[in-house]
Amino acid sequence: MKLREMGERAIIDRISNSLPRNAVLSAGEDDCAVMDLGDDYLLLTIDMLHKSTDFPDKMTPWQIGWMSVAVNLSDIAAMGGYPIAIATALGLPNYTEISFVDEIIEGMNFCARMFNTNIVGGDTDEHDELTAVCTALGQVKKDELLRRSGSQIGDLVCVTGELGTAEAGLQAISMDIPECVEKILTKKLFEPQPRVNEGIALAKSGVVTSMIDISDGLALSLYDLSTSSNKGFLIHEDKIPTLDETRIVSPDMELPLYGGGDFELLLTVRPDGIEKAKKVCNLTIVGEVTSRDILIKRNGVISKIEARGHEHFS
Amino acid sequence: MKLREMGERAIIDRISNSLPRNAVLSAGEDDCAVMDLGDDYLLLTIDMLHKSTDFPDKMTPWQIGWMSVAVNLSDIAAMGGYPIAIATALGLPNYTEISFVDEIIEGMNFCARMFNTNIVGGDTDEHDELTAVCTALGQVKKDELLRRSGSQIGDLVCVTGELGTAEAGLQAISMDIPECVEKILTKKLFEPQPRVNEGIALAKSGVVTSMIDISDGLALSLYDLSTSSNKGFLIHEDKIPTLDETRIVSPDMELPLYGGGDFELLLTVRPDGIEKAKKVCNLTIVGEVTSRDILIKRNGVISKIEARGHEHFS
Repeated sequence: MKLREMGERAIIDRISNSLPRNAVLSAGEDDCAVMDLGDDYLLLTIDMLHKSTDFPDKMTPWQIGWMSVAVNLSDIAAMGGYPIAIATALGLPNYTEISFVDEIIEGMNFCARMFNTNIVGGDTDEHDELTAVCTALGQVKKDELLRRSGSQIGDLVCVTGELGTAEAGLQAISMDIPECVEKILTKKLFEPQPRVNEGIALAKSGVVTSMIDISDGLALSLYDLSTSSNKGFLIHEDKIPTLDETRIVSPDMELPLYGGGDFELLLTVRPDGIEKAKKVCNLTIVGEVTSRDILIKRNGVISKIEARGHEHFS
Repeated sequence: MKLREMGERAIIDRISNSLPRNAVLSAGEDDCAVMDLGDDYLLLTIDMLHKSTDFPDKMTPWQIGWMSVAVNLSDIAAMGGYPIAIATALGLPNYTEISFVDEIIEGMNFCARMFNTNIVGGDTDEHDELTAVCTALGQVKKDELLRRSGSQIGDLVCVTGELGTAEAGLQAISMDIPECVEKILTKKLFEPQPRVNEGIALAKSGVVTSMIDISDGLALSLYDLSTSSNKGFLIHEDKIPTLDETRIVSPDMELPLYGGGDFELLLTVRPDGIEKAKKVCNLTIVGEVTSRDILIKRNGVISKIEARGHEHFS
């Protein structure tokens, strides 16, 4: 069977299942691999981005650098950790101007510094297609680690920020819409803000029962959380936070539910802790944890959320 | 200026110099970035390999996996550390058979397990050209960390294994030589043995003053060691260990001096500690540390070793 017949998630599952589990949490089980450091856990994540899939033409090299680091920091954030180091491997065409590379590195460094960490190492390689791989190391106190498992029936489902913005930005590029709308949307697409500070604050609050970052869309993230927690969710469509600009691109809820690239956090909170959680972080309650099924309530009618979203090889 | 006018080392130097130095050792200064963990140091390295440059057609997917992990473990070994985790990002064409990916992962896992570590996480991405990025985490006691700096005048210059084998393997593929010779050489090229156990033993011996792995050839590694230690070297050509099979491919000393891909260790040892070093690890003494210049003695005549070897973008 060829990869294009499988889809990225099935491939990652297959690889994960073929490997021995010697870390506290291994490949594919959560946003980061988790290793025991004594009092703390060490978090490790890696992400591969490249020109044709991840860097639209309108993106500046600075933004390419920013995004490459940001998507890794988002994984650290999703487990409640703080980043301690970034390393990068850059695959570059040999006709690339050195000033272009300088700007990528500046964007990477800027993003790392914004979240109190540094680019500590790297590799470069000659490559036909611009490829940026970053790996992030994080650390978290053992009792503050947030995992995908842990949701309890009755917990409140919350998200940070607004959803659908990045995917709306991607569609906006090829649409005839006001420039100011396109600019707002593509800024979010090209410069995703990893919720590192929010993740740390939520982990310290002690009221969060599970967490994940929404990299491939709300729907797929709910499915991942459901698999790990063995619970279901009921989402209220009218509660999902979106920007007005996203509604200009697509008036229905396709983008906020199934669009990728937002890098917001999706989490579940104990009902008695919701005020505490809202004090440390800007959150929107979008639903509640149930025993099974991933459902959405739309105009009083309940239906199933589809398990689809952004996925490579498909 | 375009990258092809610069060469990989100049590019990495430029990037390293543009970044703040907040780790104990940062990007470009040594084989790994080094971070403070309290009693120990944490080591982090990343390497990007891909089809056109690193994986000749005769290489099996298992060997592609093995090599991708091995080159990272070699960086950990060069600092005297033991590996604690590997993560990988695989860029794969969508027409790839899943069995091919399974074999890559099996080779990666096999190499990791051979050196007491595990693949703990990863990412996959659709990519025109097969690309394998691995990152390795290592750990080392603070007083056992071996760096590129530290050589003292009069120290003995040593190497593990034999040199030039991998480059001879690469040339052998397109030469008309006995199959048994080609097999021996390509085995070394396709399945480099990271000197993890040797690195740990040498670090614990307390008699090694500096160390580096020979990934881009002996000559360039001597130049790197010289830059970091601010010393020179006198190498005796007739002492450089090579396999007879390497001499069949190239009877002169071009390959052992300038060929890449061997992943042996190059180190300097205090003269009074050489017996101790030889007890813990199979070593060959190839020269001595001097105040300046990187020289070679050949048939009684001393000349300069050129600063050239395996380099991308050139």
